[in-house]
Amino acid sequence: MLDRVNSCRDLKMSPAPWRLALARALHRSCANPTLVTFSWPPSAKTDAQPTAPLFFEDFGKTANCSKMVCDRRSAKVQQLQRCPWGEICWYFSETREQFRLAGEIALIAADCADPAQQQARQQMWQQLSDAARGQFAWPHPGQPRRESSVFPEEPPSVQAPLAVFCLLLFQPQSVDFLELRGEPQNRWRYDRNESGQWTEIALNP
Amino acid sequence: MLDRVNSCRDLKMSPAPWRLALARALHRSCANPTLVTFSWPPSAKTDAQPTAPLFFEDFGKTANCSKMVCDRRSAKVQQLQRCPWGEICWYFSETREQFRLAGEIALIAADCADPAQQQARQQMWQQLSDAARGQFAWPHPGQPRRESSVFPEEPPSVQAPLAVFCLLLFQPQSVDFLELRGEPQNRWRYDRNESGQWTEIALNP
Repeated sequence: MLDRVNSCRDLKMSPAPWRLALARALHRSCANPTLVTFSWPPSAKTDAQPTAPLFFEDFGKTANCSKMVCDRRSAKVQQLQRCPWGEICWYFSETREQFRLAGEIALIAADCADPAQQQARQQMWQQLSDAARGQFAWPHPGQPRRESSVFPEEPPSVQAPLAVFCLLLFQPQSVDFLELRGEPQNRWRYDRNESGQWTEIALNP
Repeated sequence: MLDRVNSCRDLKMSPAPWRLALARALHRSCANPTLVTFSWPPSAKTDAQPTAPLFFEDFGKTANCSKMVCDRRSAKVQQLQRCPWGEICWYFSETREQFRLAGEIALIAADCADPAQQQARQQMWQQLSDAARGQFAWPHPGQPRRESSVFPEEPPSVQAPLAVFCLLLFQPQSVDFLELRGEPQNRWRYDRNESGQWTEIALNP
Protein backbone atom coordinates (compact mmCIF):
# COMPACT_ATOMS: atom_id res chain seq x y z
CA MET A 1 0.00 0.00 0.00
CA LEU A 2 1.13 3.46 -0.86
CA ASP A 3 0.53 6.35 1.45
CA ARG A 4 -3.14 6.30 0.68
CA VAL A 5 -4.01 9.15 3.02
CA ASN A 6 -1.74 11.54 1.23
CA SER A 7 -2.79 10.36 -2.19
CA CYS A 8 -6.37 11.04 -1.22
CA ARG A 9 -5.46 14.50 -0.11
CA ASP A 10 -3.69 15.18 -3.39
CA LEU A 11 -6.68 14.04 -5.38
CA LYS A 12 -8.86 16.61 -3.68
CA MET A 13 -7.05 19.20 -5.76
CA SER A 14 -8.06 17.78 -9.12
CA PRO A 15 -11.54 16.29 -9.32
CA ALA A 16 -11.72 13.37 -11.73
CA PRO A 17 -13.90 13.86 -14.84
CA TRP A 18 -16.60 11.47 -13.58
CA ARG A 19 -16.87 13.30 -10.25
CA LEU A 20 -19.11 16.05 -11.61
CA ALA A 21 -21.70 13.61 -12.94
CA LEU A 22 -21.62 11.68 -9.68
CA ALA A 23 -21.91 14.80 -7.54
CA ARG A 24 -24.89 15.95 -9.61
CA ALA A 25 -26.62 12.58 -9.28
CA LEU A 26 -25.98 12.48 -5.53
CA HIS A 27 -27.36 15.99 -5.17
CA ARG A 28 -30.55 15.15 -7.08
CA SER A 29 -31.13 11.81 -5.40
CA CYS A 30 -29.94 12.35 -1.86
CA ALA A 31 -30.06 9.47 0.61
CA ASN A 32 -29.92 6.71 -1.95
CA PRO A 33 -28.60 3.42 -0.66
CA THR A 34 -25.22 2.35 -1.87
CA LEU A 35 -23.41 -0.93 -1.90
CA VAL A 36 -19.76 -1.77 -1.87
CA THR A 37 -18.72 -5.21 -3.03
CA PHE A 38 -15.32 -6.77 -2.81
CA SER A 39 -14.11 -8.13 -6.08
CA TRP A 40 -10.93 -9.00 -7.89
CA PRO A 41 -8.99 -6.90 -10.37
CA PRO A 42 -9.17 -8.13 -13.96
CA SER A 43 -5.59 -9.32 -13.83
CA ALA A 44 -5.93 -11.24 -10.59
CA LYS A 45 -5.51 -14.97 -10.53
CA THR A 46 -6.23 -15.42 -6.88
CA ASP A 47 -6.99 -18.39 -4.73
CA ALA A 48 -10.20 -16.65 -4.01
CA GLN A 49 -12.71 -16.43 -1.25
CA PRO A 50 -16.18 -14.98 -1.78
CA THR A 51 -16.93 -11.32 -2.02
CA ALA A 52 -19.02 -9.69 0.63
CA PRO A 53 -20.97 -6.48 0.34
CA LEU A 54 -20.46 -3.64 2.72
CA PHE A 55 -22.55 -0.56 3.09
CA PHE A 56 -20.89 2.55 2.01
CA GLU A 57 -20.45 5.12 4.72
CA ASP A 58 -18.86 8.21 3.31
CA PHE A 59 -17.79 9.80 0.08
CA GLY A 60 -15.98 13.06 0.48
CA LYS A 61 -17.68 15.97 -1.23
CA THR A 62 -14.56 16.84 -3.15
CA ALA A 63 -12.15 13.92 -2.91
CA ASN A 64 -11.82 11.24 -5.56
CA CYS A 65 -11.36 8.60 -2.91
CA SER A 66 -13.72 7.61 -0.15
CA LYS A 67 -13.66 6.40 3.43
CA MET A 68 -15.51 3.56 5.07
CA VAL A 69 -15.29 1.87 8.44
CA CYS A 70 -15.58 -1.75 9.46
CA ASP A 71 -15.06 -4.15 12.33
CA ARG A 72 -11.79 -6.14 12.41
CA ARG A 73 -13.76 -9.26 13.33
CA SER A 74 -16.01 -9.20 10.26
CA ALA A 75 -15.45 -11.57 7.34
CA LYS A 76 -14.78 -8.70 4.94
CA VAL A 77 -11.44 -7.94 6.63
CA GLN A 78 -10.07 -11.38 5.77
CA GLN A 79 -11.37 -10.99 2.23
CA LEU A 80 -9.65 -7.62 1.89
CA GLN A 81 -6.39 -9.04 3.16
CA ARG A 82 -6.54 -11.65 0.41
CA CYS A 83 -7.34 -9.11 -2.25
CA PRO A 84 -7.65 -5.38 -1.51
CA TRP A 85 -10.01 -4.64 -4.37
CA GLY A 86 -13.66 -3.73 -4.55
CA GLU A 87 -16.48 -2.04 -6.40
CA ILE A 88 -18.87 0.67 -5.32
CA CYS A 89 -22.13 0.71 -7.22
CA TRP A 90 -24.79 3.35 -7.28
CA TYR A 91 -28.05 3.39 -9.10
CA PHE A 92 -30.07 6.57 -8.98
CA SER A 93 -33.63 5.70 -9.80
CA GLU A 94 -34.78 9.29 -10.32
CA THR A 95 -32.16 10.20 -12.87
CA ARG A 96 -31.70 6.59 -14.06
CA GLU A 97 -27.93 6.85 -13.81
CA GLN A 98 -25.65 3.99 -12.81
CA PHE A 99 -22.08 4.36 -11.52
CA ARG A 100 -19.68 1.50 -10.96
CA LEU A 101 -16.39 2.46 -9.35
CA ALA A 102 -13.70 -0.23 -9.12
CA GLY A 103 -10.46 0.17 -7.25
CA GLU A 104 -8.13 -0.66 -4.41
CA ILE A 105 -9.18 -0.65 -0.78
CA ALA A 106 -6.59 0.07 1.88
CA LEU A 107 -7.28 -1.44 5.29
CA ILE A 108 -6.03 0.67 8.18
CA ALA A 109 -6.26 -1.44 11.33
CA ALA A 110 -4.97 -0.93 14.87
CA ASP A 111 -1.63 -2.55 13.95
CA CYS A 112 -0.94 -0.23 11.00
CA ALA A 113 2.54 1.26 11.45
CA ASP A 114 2.09 4.40 9.36
CA PRO A 115 1.58 7.44 11.64
CA ALA A 116 -0.42 9.43 9.05
CA GLN A 117 -2.76 6.50 8.46
CA GLN A 118 -3.18 5.96 12.21
CA GLN A 119 -4.06 9.62 12.56
CA ALA A 120 -6.66 9.29 9.81
CA ARG A 121 -8.09 6.23 11.60
CA GLN A 122 -8.32 8.17 14.86
CA GLN A 123 -9.95 11.16 13.17
CA MET A 124 -12.55 8.92 11.58
CA TRP A 125 -13.31 7.36 14.97
CA GLN A 126 -13.82 10.79 16.47
CA GLN A 127 -16.23 11.77 13.71
CA LEU A 128 -18.53 8.83 14.40
CA SER A 129 -21.72 9.24 16.39
CA ASP A 130 -21.99 7.66 19.84
CA ALA A 131 -24.25 4.99 18.37
CA ALA A 132 -21.82 4.15 15.59
CA ARG A 133 -18.87 3.93 17.99
CA GLY A 134 -20.94 1.82 20.34
CA GLN A 135 -21.33 -0.93 17.74
CA PHE A 136 -17.62 -1.69 17.92
CA ALA A 137 -18.08 -2.72 21.56
CA TRP A 138 -20.77 -5.25 20.67
CA PRO A 139 -20.10 -9.00 20.67
CA HIS A 140 -18.42 -10.66 17.69
CA PRO A 141 -20.53 -9.75 14.61
CA GLY A 142 -21.96 -12.71 12.71
CA GLN A 143 -21.58 -15.16 15.59
CA PRO A 144 -24.71 -16.80 17.05
CA ARG A 145 -26.53 -14.47 19.39
CA ARG A 146 -26.76 -15.64 22.99
CA GLU A 147 -29.15 -14.60 25.72
CA SER A 148 -26.03 -13.74 27.70
CA SER A 149 -24.61 -11.46 24.96
CA VAL A 150 -23.67 -8.09 26.38
CA PHE A 151 -24.38 -4.92 24.39
CA PRO A 152 -22.89 -2.08 26.45
CA GLU A 153 -25.18 0.90 26.82
CA GLU A 154 -22.39 3.43 27.25
CA PRO A 155 -20.45 4.22 24.05
CA PRO A 156 -16.67 3.76 24.11
CA SER A 157 -14.43 6.76 24.65
CA VAL A 158 -14.22 9.17 21.74
CA GLN A 159 -10.50 9.70 22.31
CA ALA A 160 -8.89 6.47 21.10
CA PRO A 161 -10.41 3.94 18.69
CA LEU A 162 -11.19 0.46 19.97
CA ALA A 163 -8.76 -2.16 18.66
CA VAL A 164 -11.35 -3.70 16.34
CA PHE A 165 -12.06 -0.40 14.58
CA CYS A 166 -10.71 -0.22 11.01
CA LEU A 167 -10.68 2.57 8.48
CA LEU A 168 -10.98 1.66 4.81
CA LEU A 169 -9.81 3.95 2.04
CA PHE A 170 -11.17 3.29 -1.39
CA GLN A 171 -9.21 4.57 -4.40
CA PRO A 172 -11.12 4.21 -7.70
CA GLN A 173 -9.05 2.98 -10.65
CA SER A 174 -11.87 2.75 -13.18
CA VAL A 175 -15.38 4.13 -13.38
CA ASP A 176 -18.23 2.90 -15.57
CA PHE A 177 -21.01 5.47 -15.98
CA LEU A 178 -24.28 4.55 -17.68
CA GLU A 179 -27.09 6.98 -18.49
CA LEU A 180 -30.18 4.85 -18.94
CA ARG A 181 -32.33 7.76 -20.09
CA GLY A 182 -30.65 8.11 -23.47
CA GLU A 183 -32.18 6.59 -26.61
CA PRO A 184 -29.94 4.73 -27.11
CA GLN A 185 -28.38 4.88 -23.66
CA ASN A 186 -25.02 6.54 -23.09
CA ARG A 187 -22.09 4.89 -21.40
CA TRP A 188 -18.58 6.03 -20.58
CA ARG A 189 -15.57 4.41 -19.01
CA TYR A 190 -12.90 6.31 -17.12
CA ASP A 191 -9.50 4.81 -16.29
CA ARG A 192 -6.83 6.19 -14.01
CA ASN A 193 -3.32 5.76 -15.31
CA GLU A 194 -0.12 5.40 -13.30
CA SER A 195 0.43 9.14 -13.12
CA GLY A 196 -3.03 9.67 -11.67
CA GLN A 197 -4.56 11.12 -14.84
CA TRP A 198 -7.97 9.97 -16.01
CA THR A 199 -8.79 8.87 -19.53
CA GLU A 200 -12.34 8.81 -20.91
CA ILE A 201 -13.88 6.63 -23.61
CA ALA A 202 -17.45 6.28 -24.86
CA LEU A 203 -18.70 2.69 -24.84
CA ASN A 204 -21.60 0.84 -26.36
CA PRO A 205 -24.26 0.66 -23.62
CA MET B 1 -27.29 -27.52 -13.00
CA LEU B 2 -30.43 -29.21 -11.79
CA ASP B 3 -33.76 -28.55 -13.40
CA ARG B 4 -33.87 -25.08 -12.02
CA VAL B 5 -37.14 -24.14 -13.65
CA ASN B 6 -39.01 -26.94 -11.94
CA SER B 7 -37.30 -26.37 -8.63
CA CYS B 8 -38.40 -22.74 -8.81
CA ARG B 9 -41.96 -23.84 -9.46
CA ASP B 10 -41.86 -26.17 -6.48
CA LEU B 11 -40.57 -23.48 -4.21
CA LYS B 12 -43.58 -21.32 -5.00
CA MET B 13 -45.59 -23.72 -2.88
CA SER B 14 -43.61 -23.15 0.32
CA PRO B 15 -42.38 -19.61 0.88
CA ALA B 16 -39.09 -19.51 2.78
CA PRO B 17 -39.17 -17.96 6.26
CA TRP B 18 -37.29 -14.85 5.15
CA ARG B 19 -39.71 -14.21 2.26
CA LEU B 20 -42.35 -12.56 4.45
CA ALA B 21 -39.90 -9.97 5.83
CA LEU B 22 -38.61 -9.28 2.32
CA ALA B 23 -42.08 -9.00 0.81
CA ARG B 24 -43.08 -6.54 3.54
CA ALA B 25 -39.98 -4.42 3.00
CA LEU B 26 -40.51 -4.42 -0.79
CA HIS B 27 -44.12 -3.39 -0.31
CA ARG B 28 -43.21 -0.48 1.98
CA SER B 29 -40.30 0.72 -0.11
CA CYS B 30 -41.39 0.11 -3.68
CA ALA B 31 -39.02 0.92 -6.52
CA ASN B 32 -35.83 0.64 -4.51
CA PRO B 33 -32.73 -0.05 -6.55
CA THR B 34 -31.20 -3.47 -6.16
CA LEU B 35 -27.83 -4.88 -6.99
CA VAL B 36 -26.72 -8.34 -7.82
CA THR B 37 -23.05 -9.17 -7.47
CA PHE B 38 -21.29 -12.28 -8.58
CA SER B 39 -19.23 -13.87 -5.89
CA TRP B 40 -17.76 -17.18 -4.87
CA PRO B 41 -19.20 -19.71 -2.48
CA PRO B 42 -17.32 -20.01 0.82
CA SER B 43 -15.85 -23.35 -0.19
CA ALA B 44 -14.64 -22.22 -3.59
CA LYS B 45 -10.96 -22.21 -4.38
CA THR B 46 -11.26 -20.83 -7.86
CA ASP B 47 -8.81 -19.38 -10.29
CA ALA B 48 -10.95 -16.34 -10.10
CA GLN B 49 -11.86 -13.43 -12.27
CA PRO B 50 -13.48 -10.32 -10.84
CA THR B 51 -17.07 -10.06 -9.86
CA ALA B 52 -19.36 -7.74 -11.75
CA PRO B 53 -22.60 -6.27 -10.55
CA LEU B 54 -25.80 -6.69 -12.47
CA PHE B 55 -29.04 -4.92 -11.92
CA PHE B 56 -31.77 -7.07 -10.67
CA GLU B 57 -34.75 -7.32 -12.97
CA ASP B 58 -37.40 -9.46 -11.38
CA PHE B 59 -38.26 -11.22 -8.18
CA GLY B 60 -41.40 -13.33 -8.32
CA LYS B 61 -44.05 -12.25 -5.88
CA THR B 62 -44.32 -15.73 -4.42
CA ALA B 63 -41.30 -17.71 -5.59
CA ASN B 64 -38.16 -18.19 -3.53
CA CYS B 65 -36.02 -17.89 -6.64
CA SER B 66 -35.74 -14.99 -9.04
CA LYS B 67 -35.22 -14.30 -12.72
CA MET B 68 -32.87 -11.89 -14.44
CA VAL B 69 -31.84 -11.36 -18.02
CA CYS B 70 -28.50 -10.51 -19.57
CA ASP B 71 -26.62 -10.26 -22.85
CA ARG B 72 -24.44 -13.23 -23.84
CA ARG B 73 -21.69 -10.82 -24.89
CA SER B 74 -21.37 -9.14 -21.51
CA ALA B 75 -18.46 -9.91 -19.17
CA LYS B 76 -20.77 -11.28 -16.51
CA VAL B 77 -21.57 -14.34 -18.62
CA GLN B 78 -17.94 -15.46 -18.61
CA GLN B 79 -17.78 -14.83 -14.89
CA LEU B 80 -20.89 -16.93 -14.31
CA GLN B 81 -19.48 -19.75 -16.38
CA ARG B 82 -16.43 -19.78 -14.14
CA CYS B 83 -18.48 -19.76 -10.98
CA PRO B 84 -22.29 -19.71 -11.01
CA TRP B 85 -22.65 -17.96 -7.69
CA GLY B 86 -23.83 -14.51 -6.69
CA GLU B 87 -25.34 -12.23 -4.09
CA ILE B 88 -28.40 -10.03 -4.25
CA CYS B 89 -28.36 -7.16 -1.80
CA TRP B 90 -31.14 -4.85 -0.82
CA TYR B 91 -31.10 -1.95 1.56
CA PHE B 92 -34.42 -0.33 2.33
CA SER B 93 -33.71 3.13 3.62
CA GLU B 94 -37.22 3.76 4.93
CA THR B 95 -37.43 0.67 7.08
CA ARG B 96 -33.65 0.43 7.56
CA GLU B 97 -33.62 -3.24 6.67
CA GLN B 98 -30.81 -4.99 4.80
CA PHE B 99 -31.12 -8.31 2.98
CA ARG B 100 -28.23 -10.27 1.52
CA LEU B 101 -29.20 -13.32 -0.50
CA ALA B 102 -26.41 -15.62 -1.67
CA GLY B 103 -26.90 -18.53 -4.01
CA GLU B 104 -26.41 -20.25 -7.32
CA ILE B 105 -27.18 -18.61 -10.64
CA ALA B 106 -28.19 -20.81 -13.58
CA LEU B 107 -27.38 -19.37 -17.00
CA ILE B 108 -29.90 -20.34 -19.69
CA ALA B 109 -28.43 -19.35 -23.04
CA ALA B 110 -29.47 -20.10 -26.62
CA ASP B 111 -27.45 -23.33 -26.62
CA CYS B 112 -29.11 -24.76 -23.49
CA ALA B 113 -30.39 -28.24 -24.34
CA ASP B 114 -33.10 -28.49 -21.68
CA PRO B 115 -36.55 -27.96 -23.30
CA ALA B 116 -38.18 -26.65 -20.09
CA GLN B 117 -35.39 -24.13 -19.57
CA GLN B 118 -35.59 -23.04 -23.22
CA GLN B 119 -39.30 -22.52 -22.79
CA ALA B 120 -38.68 -20.39 -19.70
CA ARG B 121 -36.13 -18.36 -21.67
CA GLN B 122 -38.63 -17.80 -24.47
CA GLN B 123 -41.41 -16.81 -22.04
CA MET B 124 -39.11 -14.29 -20.40
CA TRP B 125 -38.25 -12.79 -23.80
CA GLN B 126 -41.92 -12.41 -24.60
CA GLN B 127 -42.58 -10.62 -21.31
CA LEU B 128 -39.99 -7.93 -22.05
CA SER B 129 -41.01 -4.52 -23.32
CA ASP B 130 -40.11 -3.51 -26.89
CA ALA B 131 -37.40 -1.25 -25.49
CA ALA B 132 -35.87 -4.00 -23.38
CA ARG B 133 -35.87 -6.47 -26.29
CA GLY B 134 -34.40 -3.81 -28.54
CA GLN B 135 -31.26 -3.56 -26.41
CA PHE B 136 -30.24 -7.09 -27.39
CA ALA B 137 -29.96 -5.92 -31.00
CA TRP B 138 -27.51 -3.17 -30.06
CA PRO B 139 -23.78 -3.39 -30.82
CA HIS B 140 -21.48 -5.37 -28.51
CA PRO B 141 -21.96 -3.92 -24.99
CA GLY B 142 -18.84 -2.50 -23.37
CA GLN B 143 -16.94 -2.13 -26.64
CA PRO B 144 -15.83 1.36 -27.75
CA ARG B 145 -18.69 3.30 -29.29
CA ARG B 146 -18.23 4.27 -32.94
CA GLU B 147 -19.94 6.93 -34.98
CA SER B 148 -20.88 4.11 -37.32
CA SER B 149 -22.51 2.00 -34.56
CA VAL B 150 -26.01 0.96 -35.54
CA PHE B 151 -28.79 0.98 -32.97
CA PRO B 152 -31.84 -0.45 -34.74
CA GLU B 153 -35.03 1.53 -34.19
CA GLU B 154 -37.35 -1.43 -34.70
CA PRO B 155 -37.41 -3.94 -31.82
CA PRO B 156 -36.67 -7.58 -32.65
CA SER B 157 -39.54 -10.01 -33.08
CA VAL B 158 -41.33 -10.97 -29.90
CA GLN B 159 -41.69 -14.59 -31.03
CA ALA B 160 -38.18 -16.01 -30.72
CA PRO B 161 -35.35 -14.65 -28.52
CA LEU B 162 -32.23 -13.29 -30.19
CA ALA B 163 -29.23 -15.60 -29.81
CA VAL B 164 -27.51 -13.28 -27.34
CA PHE B 165 -30.48 -13.24 -24.96
CA CYS B 166 -29.89 -15.17 -21.72
CA LEU B 167 -32.16 -15.93 -18.80
CA LEU B 168 -30.61 -16.16 -15.35
CA LEU B 169 -32.26 -18.02 -12.50
CA PHE B 170 -31.07 -17.19 -9.02
CA GLN B 171 -31.63 -19.74 -6.27
CA PRO B 172 -30.81 -18.42 -2.78
CA GLN B 173 -28.90 -20.78 -0.51
CA SER B 174 -28.43 -18.43 2.43
CA VAL B 175 -30.02 -15.16 3.50
CA ASP B 176 -28.65 -12.60 5.94
CA PHE B 177 -31.31 -10.23 7.28
CA LEU B 178 -30.36 -7.21 9.37
CA GLU B 179 -32.81 -4.86 11.07
CA LEU B 180 -30.91 -1.66 11.72
CA ARG B 181 -33.70 -0.07 13.72
CA GLY B 182 -33.30 -2.32 16.76
CA GLU B 183 -31.35 -1.18 19.81
CA PRO B 184 -29.23 -3.23 19.56
CA GLN B 185 -29.90 -4.21 15.96
CA ASN B 186 -31.38 -7.60 15.08
CA ARG B 187 -29.83 -10.01 12.62
CA TRP B 188 -30.81 -13.44 11.38
CA ARG B 189 -29.27 -15.95 9.04
CA TYR B 190 -31.28 -18.47 7.04
CA ASP B 191 -29.68 -21.48 5.36
CA ARG B 192 -31.25 -23.87 2.90
CA ASN B 193 -30.30 -27.50 3.45
CA GLU B 194 -30.07 -30.24 0.84
CA SER B 195 -33.73 -31.18 1.17
CA GLY B 196 -34.78 -27.58 0.51
CA GLN B 197 -35.75 -26.78 4.09
CA TRP B 198 -34.68 -23.51 5.66
CA THR B 199 -33.01 -23.17 9.05
CA GLU B 200 -32.96 -19.91 11.02
CA ILE B 201 -30.46 -18.61 13.55
CA ALA B 202 -30.18 -15.28 15.35
CA LEU B 203 -26.76 -13.66 14.97
CA ASN B 204 -24.92 -10.85 16.67
CA PRO B 205 -25.41 -7.76 14.50
